[in-house]
Amino acid sequence: MKNHEIRIRKWLKENRIKGARLLQRLVQENSTRGNESSAQAVIIEKCRQLGMKLDIWEIGGDGLRNHPAFCCDRKDFEGNPNLVAVLKGTGGGKSMILNGHIDVVPVGDRNRWEHDPFSGHIESGRLYGRGATDMKGGTVALLMAIESIIETGTKLKGDIIFQSVIEEESGGAGTLAAVLKGYRADGAIIPEPTNMKIFPKQQGSMWFRITVKGKAAHGGTRYEGVNAIEKSVKVIQRLQQLEKDRNAKITDSLYENIPIPIPINIGKITSGEWPSSVPDTAVIEGRMGVAPQETIQEAQHQMHACLEELNEQDEWFKQHPIKIEWFGAMWLPGNLESDHPLIEELSRSFKSVKGDEPIIEASPWGTDGGILSNIGGTPVVVFGPGITELAHDANEHIILEEMFAASEIIALTLLKWCGVND
Amino acid sequence: MKNHEIRIRKWLKENRIKGARLLQRLVQENSTRGNESSAQAVIIEKCRQLGMKLDIWEIGGDGLRNHPAFCCDRKDFEGNPNLVAVLKGTGGGKSMILNGHIDVVPVGDRNRWEHDPFSGHIESGRLYGRGATDMKGGTVALLMAIESIIETGTKLKGDIIFQSVIEEESGGAGTLAAVLKGYRADGAIIPEPTNMKIFPKQQGSMWFRITVKGKAAHGGTRYEGVNAIEKSVKVIQRLQQLEKDRNAKITDSLYENIPIPIPINIGKITSGEWPSSVPDTAVIEGRMGVAPQETIQEAQHQMHACLEELNEQDEWFKQHPIKIEWFGAMWLPGNLESDHPLIEELSRSFKSVKGDEPIIEASPWGTDGGILSNIGGTPVVVFGPGITELAHDANEHIILEEMFAASEIIALTLLKWCGVND
Repeated sequence: MKNHEIRIRKWLKENRIKGARLLQRLVQENSTRGNESSAQAVIIEKCRQLGMKLDIWEIGGDGLRNHPAFCCDRKDFEGNPNLVAVLKGTGGGKSMILNGHIDVVPVGDRNRWEHDPFSGHIESGRLYGRGATDMKGGTVALLMAIESIIETGTKLKGDIIFQSVIEEESGGAGTLAAVLKGYRADGAIIPEPTNMKIFPKQQGSMWFRITVKGKAAHGGTRYEGVNAIEKSVKVIQRLQQLEKDRNAKITDSLYENIPIPIPINIGKITSGEWPSSVPDTAVIEGRMGVAPQETIQEAQHQMHACLEELNEQDEWFKQHPIKIEWFGAMWLPGNLESDHPLIEELSRSFKSVKGDEPIIEASPWGTDGGILSNIGGTPVVVFGPGITELAHDANEHIILEEMFAASEIIALTLLKWCGVND
Repeated sequence: MKNHEIRIRKWLKENRIKGARLLQRLVQENSTRGNESSAQAVIIEKCRQLGMKLDIWEIGGDGLRNHPAFCCDRKDFEGNPNLVAVLKGTGGGKSMILNGHIDVVPVGDRNRWEHDPFSGHIESGRLYGRGATDMKGGTVALLMAIESIIETGTKLKGDIIFQSVIEEESGGAGTLAAVLKGYRADGAIIPEPTNMKIFPKQQGSMWFRITVKGKAAHGGTRYEGVNAIEKSVKVIQRLQQLEKDRNAKITDSLYENIPIPIPINIGKITSGEWPSSVPDTAVIEGRMGVAPQETIQEAQHQMHACLEELNEQDEWFKQHPIKIEWFGAMWLPGNLESDHPLIEELSRSFKSVKGDEPIIEASPWGTDGGILSNIGGTPVVVFGPGITELAHDANEHIILEEMFAASEIIALTLLKWCGVND
């Protein structure tokens, strides 16, 4: 085993430039929702070169769409396939899913980016661009780990099931489709940007849309109307209070360093058509976090109760109740025991590469891990090289050194988890 | 004189159905910004039938665009002309501008309308639709007054200069173009929806756009970002305070029945692209009222000072100052003395038709009167049959009886103001 380790670590050290170039190519392909195909093509090409068995398909169909965990407002998946690439083991070992998502969130205010968000610019050991951290860097770490195993002629007993999925940022339909196609394993690693922390537990989350009614009027006699924006301020303040109350109840020690373990994020507001009219409708969209031990339904119930309370307290809302819908995206929470063998193997590999103990925490955000574990019955750990704080932000980047370290840690974990056929 | 009056009032009573039908046709033509031509065509046809001298032109050109009072973000006026139709007097009398705007604001939430907003549906003496009150009903009152004078063979000494202009709702470029073309007079009536009140003073107003910066982040670690929507709540609350402070200083008795004489209306907010991202920018648009005695510059200065104060008090804003622009629309305030002969003549006609004294107040909103008076030097009164509270609202309608009464009052005022040649 020691020899395999040495060869693999040597190969990974010697092929860093190759890994950085692959990430650069991936970042240069804008893969926001609906545009995943060109970045996916880079990955498909890579897996084909590695000789893996490819399963490329456009997700959809009644089995997926009617599944209770399917939560997606996207009409059309045509032209933007899912990919599963299998490296078959020799038999007798444990299998591992390695899952990364290819979709990235929009760039936001482009003026805040120092470099073109799709440049893949490299400077001082950092690679810049949308998706560098969340999570193309993680995906490259997986691909390098797989490549190092293949290129060093290492034969694993268990299967490696590499997945590059769409739709993670919008609720996980890509991973759900892979689960429903039968891809399950003895363990799974998802290299989302965790700052190299190990997350056995994952926060679930879901999207909400709140509609607040007002009464239109001419802005000059605005007292004849009811301003939907001003009424929205009350709703926002109530949501802030709910977030505070919910987080005060979180006692899990894995969350002790997370300022807001289960946040309620106000992501979007739209109201009004005309500066001098009183707006009669406001729409607020956001994301509600779900605790690992909590169900989606329990969290939704708390939100409903909080808005109903506001409807009763406010004279206007009594007549024009606040409306809430759950739409678009939903990530199931994940809840693996901290002493699960997968966590133990990964921690040992971490220590072997980094020299010290890993930080084990609960993830402050949902991932596709909820689907892999709850629906697929696969034990999941989330661990990756990206910088948590930069996911979804301007100037997103990754420290390449961490990506290479993650790749080594994952490769060593694979050796031990799947077993080597000598 | 008495005979003319009797004949005109009789004609108006006998031709009410004709007036209602004209309003219905006008309301049925959607004349939101950029779509004014078909409604304008109905008016042009009417004035042509009346034998008036027509001046139909597409506004624009450097003289207009470079004028300091030109405040307009519209690129193209092609195909949506202004109209001035003159009924030449026999000479020796005072002239009168009768000004109405043909543009209407958008319909807002269509589900809140009981009838199609462009139906012109008539029920219980009310005609429904966008623009019925603001201000196609007022324009029909003007056209009926003119028609009654022509059809009864009454020869006025002074000229009647009827104007049907575009762009009132966006800052008055249509009326400014008419002024710059040389149309001025000894007096002007603008039948905006005043609930039959007489407004010698008019509130000015202008549009602002405030940009609030945040810091993007993943919604799951929202504490790593700064939410532009949450920061906007602070700005909105500060604007509410500024409105309160400014209105506390209004002492003009004409405003004593107006709850908010010079409102600051938050008309629009847009922020965020994604429910699970922390939004990094919010844009707030609105309308600031300007007191009759105040200049545009003085009001702007107060707004700037208030935002600068917030920039100093808030640590985030200190580094990322709130930005304000004045854009799109601006209405100059108007300030006619309450004992001006125009107010006196109109008041007498009002009493003669309605039997009691008119209510004389200050207008709670800006009109094109500011341009006619400040730039054109024409004394202006705002008086019309529409329902103030319904302007810009869903289910906008007008009480036809009031439209006919306004028409009589305006016709009698014209007889006295312009003088009759017997």
